[in-house]
Amino acid sequence: MTLLAVGSVALDSVETPHGVVYEVLGGSATYFSYAASFFTHVRLVGVVGQDFPPEHRELLETRDIDLEGLEMVDGKTFRWRGSYEGAMNAAKTLEVQLNVFGEFEPNVPERFRDSKFVFLANASPRLQKLVLEQVDKPELVVCDTMNFYIEKERDALIELLELVDGLVINDAEAVQLTGKHNFVAAGQEILGLGPKFVVIKKGEHGSMLMNGGQVFCIPAFPLHTVVDPTGAGDSFAGGTMGYLAAEGRFDPETLRRALVFGTVLASFNVEGFSLTKFEAIGRPEIEERFEQFVEMMRF
Amino acid sequence: MTLLAVGSVALDSVETPHGVVYEVLGGSATYFSYAASFFTHVRLVGVVGQDFPPEHRELLETRDIDLEGLEMVDGKTFRWRGSYEGAMNAAKTLEVQLNVFGEFEPNVPERFRDSKFVFLANASPRLQKLVLEQVDKPELVVCDTMNFYIEKERDALIELLELVDGLVINDAEAVQLTGKHNFVAAGQEILGLGPKFVVIKKGEHGSMLMNGGQVFCIPAFPLHTVVDPTGAGDSFAGGTMGYLAAEGRFDPETLRRALVFGTVLASFNVEGFSLTKFEAIGRPEIEERFEQFVEMMRF
Repeated sequence: MTLLAVGSVALDSVETPHGVVYEVLGGSATYFSYAASFFTHVRLVGVVGQDFPPEHRELLETRDIDLEGLEMVDGKTFRWRGSYEGAMNAAKTLEVQLNVFGEFEPNVPERFRDSKFVFLANASPRLQKLVLEQVDKPELVVCDTMNFYIEKERDALIELLELVDGLVINDAEAVQLTGKHNFVAAGQEILGLGPKFVVIKKGEHGSMLMNGGQVFCIPAFPLHTVVDPTGAGDSFAGGTMGYLAAEGRFDPETLRRALVFGTVLASFNVEGFSLTKFEAIGRPEIEERFEQFVEMMRF
Repeated sequence: MTLLAVGSVALDSVETPHGVVYEVLGGSATYFSYAASFFTHVRLVGVVGQDFPPEHRELLETRDIDLEGLEMVDGKTFRWRGSYEGAMNAAKTLEVQLNVFGEFEPNVPERFRDSKFVFLANASPRLQKLVLEQVDKPELVVCDTMNFYIEKERDALIELLELVDGLVINDAEAVQLTGKHNFVAAGQEILGLGPKFVVIKKGEHGSMLMNGGQVFCIPAFPLHTVVDPTGAGDSFAGGTMGYLAAEGRFDPETLRRALVFGTVLASFNVEGFSLTKFEAIGRPEIEERFEQFVEMMRF
């Protein structure tokens, strides 16, 4: 199935205990699309400034990601600067320059409007809705969000949640959105807001899927060394949605397997800065780690 | 196989968002023994004061827990007072009165000395070693510890770790003991200190077993409501060791299943204050939740 993604394309500067990088390729739509591209063809909707290095565009094109929806406009590309310390569970945001992403009025290319699977990566709920309205009859719409929009644009977010099939959200955000500290309770509350399923991402502690009366819980893939967690959640969502789109369905069984692929993709992503680890792997490495994961949970 | 446990027997006063209890039955050896008693016969070594209510002793005896090693001495029983807030991930200790437990010189009854499976629940490493020296030829020795002893009695703890087969430790303590924030790295470091296997307990995030080159990771059983987390780690260890002792072996496959039973016992324990939930269940409920856990992780 065709998979459309909208979100940020950014230049990230990141410091972790394992090193420092300056203005490398990042952004929610970037990580999502690259992870999903191991499974399916992705159509990306986003915006960059005139300063966006052409080699980044080329890199995404080598993954067969359709960039007709990646507009280049006057101004500077979205920049994020952050650091991670200790257990690296949460990024410390040092600087955000929204630049052209702050003014972005997405225009979904005519050719993209028949997309059947849609992922609204982390962006303002207003922008996410604007994209959704331009897709004809999507079969599956999943969105992400973040603390900033839960706080500042809660009404627009609640409105959006009535329109989507699934929400992918991290643990702290699930608590913030619902006021519930218990994830099962938070998940139930979210299902009451509209989505048919919710995935709570718990970083190094794995993820939880709730749909109908079912709960599916899996750990993260255990790694000895995490180099840079930036983009882990988007890579998780990309692996998940990429697998679903490739399978062309999202029944409970397929959703569970999709989450495991998401977990595998997130685990590769954090083994390097930016997309370096993704660039070094292919489907065989993904399948191999999937099998390792199966073995790790077997009892 | 015979299972011997040494640790604290206490009177706990606990406050959580779900209520308050005053001087209820608690302690590491209590939770451990009760959880293990669903699987096997347990021999308990511990100490209480003259103020220890006889009904607590009777309750443990109804579970076929052998209390010949539970000394009653002059003085007051160990008391702990604590509270939990919000996500209830960590207890806030408000008061500790070691009382008779502070002076405890354990004397393992002659009849207990042939025990084959031994669990040294949370206590000073000096005391744990003293018990171990009084057991003839144990086949499996597993210990727990806590932040206080890692800080104050590190040398004695390191010495003890050379003598045990397994260590059960919580996530924060694993970081404290090894200086490693990554659990795989922390686990490897611990295996270098002597134990053949290590189990890192991550509370609501589940647990991780490392033995040889293998990692086994499972989530906690997802619960909508956690009433009181006190004793969860000890119940987990009790379910795990109880199952191992009942099976009479601790090969990697059996260890994995044992951890799932530990997870199930911990999940029941936190659904009530003190031992109230344990008192309401039996093997059928445990087997049923084990099957629910299998189903929850299936993909």
